Amino acid sequence: MSQGLLFIVSAPSGTGKTTLIKRLVECVPGIVMSRSYTSRPARPGEVDGVDYTFVSDEQFTEMVEGDGFLEWAHIFGHRYGTSRSAINGYRSEGHDVVLVIDVQGAKQVRSRSDDAITIFVLPPSHQVLETRLRQRSGQDATEEELQTRLETARQEVAQSDGYDYVVVNDEIGRCVEQLQSIVVAERSRAAVVNETVDEILSAFQVIGD
Amino acid sequence: MSQGLLFIVSAPSGTGKTTLIKRLVECVPGIVMSRSYTSRPARPGEVDGVDYTFVSDEQFTEMVEGDGFLEWAHIFGHRYGTSRSAINGYRSEGHDVVLVIDVQGAKQVRSRSDDAITIFVLPPSHQVLETRLRQRSGQDATEEELQTRLETARQEVAQSDGYDYVVVNDEIGRCVEQLQSIVVAERSRAAVVNETVDEILSAFQVIGD
Repeated sequence: MSQGLLFIVSAPSGTGKTTLIKRLVECVPGIVMSRSYTSRPARPGEVDGVDYTFVSDEQFTEMVEGDGFLEWAHIFGHRYGTSRSAINGYRSEGHDVVLVIDVQGAKQVRSRSDDAITIFVLPPSHQVLETRLRQRSGQDATEEELQTRLETARQEVAQSDGYDYVVVNDEIGRCVEQLQSIVVAERSRAAVVNETVDEILSAFQVIGD
Repeated sequence: MSQGLLFIVSAPSGTGKTTLIKRLVECVPGIVMSRSYTSRPARPGEVDGVDYTFVSDEQFTEMVEGDGFLEWAHIFGHRYGTSRSAINGYRSEGHDVVLVIDVQGAKQVRSRSDDAITIFVLPPSHQVLETRLRQRSGQDATEEELQTRLETARQEVAQSDGYDYVVVNDEIGRCVEQLQSIVVAERSRAAVVNETVDEILSAFQVIGD
């Protein structure tokens, strides 16, 4: 069996990437979304093994020291990481895997898995992103906090040219179809389908002998 | 306007590539199939500018000497070629172009257009190809001629690993969808959609100033 593909999806906060990838995984057979490990406690309603794999601080440190993460980061005082053995497990069983991680995490993974396929999701415009971030922040966020988030988004968008693919999330159904096309195309790469070619070629040889 | 993409499709004779690409071009907006130039006379029912662009031997030679072809070849005593200026014309107007040419022609084009995207179409099996070739040859072909055609197909299939993508024409509707996905994915390449990124980024900068 050939090894599954590894897709990395990054997008500025407010682009709707999580909804998008959940829809993609529902539509496309043979692809799973990777679940992050985190050292933070579960919030009410969160389920271990569904939302995250929750581990203690000590367990997380052990995994870091044992090179158990493809990437990990501190976010708001807690640690989040992508388990190397979980990803390798899926892939060796022939499943494609999609990781939803930020620009820094994507860089870490690419440095360790040079066959990773990277996709950047853009908001349709600056204005839409600002509106979404305002809605999401609610009334609590100050104008300054909002500006900081927009500046972070700007810096992330500026790094999108290092990605293999760029898609715009203007309409979720259309954007899911575009992501689906990218998965189908990557599964059609000559390097990936070599087994099929070999089968057909060997039939020629058997008959030609 | 960004330049259109150039797709090259090759397949052994009997794979059904012409039907496949006609269907693709009907389904996908913004992509045209390139028409070959030939020095052979039109057959009954063939229309100049629809089936081929028919030129005289002298005109063909002039185009060869003026480096007017992206690729050209002798086939059964006549010459066939892909006009460089026709392809460049389509692409500069933003249209994607698909060329249906053989393995040798594909090599010539790639050496002159390193941005060409190459797709190889496989028959579903050796047996299906043999059946199709027998049907197409009719009763005129000797067993030896058929074996020669199968050997040519084998040599072509063996070169499919030099292509970017490999698809299997097991069922035409499914295969057209797969080709469509490859076109959509290639249109999503970061290098191709840079204008969108630039637009969104410049909106950030205008507002950030």
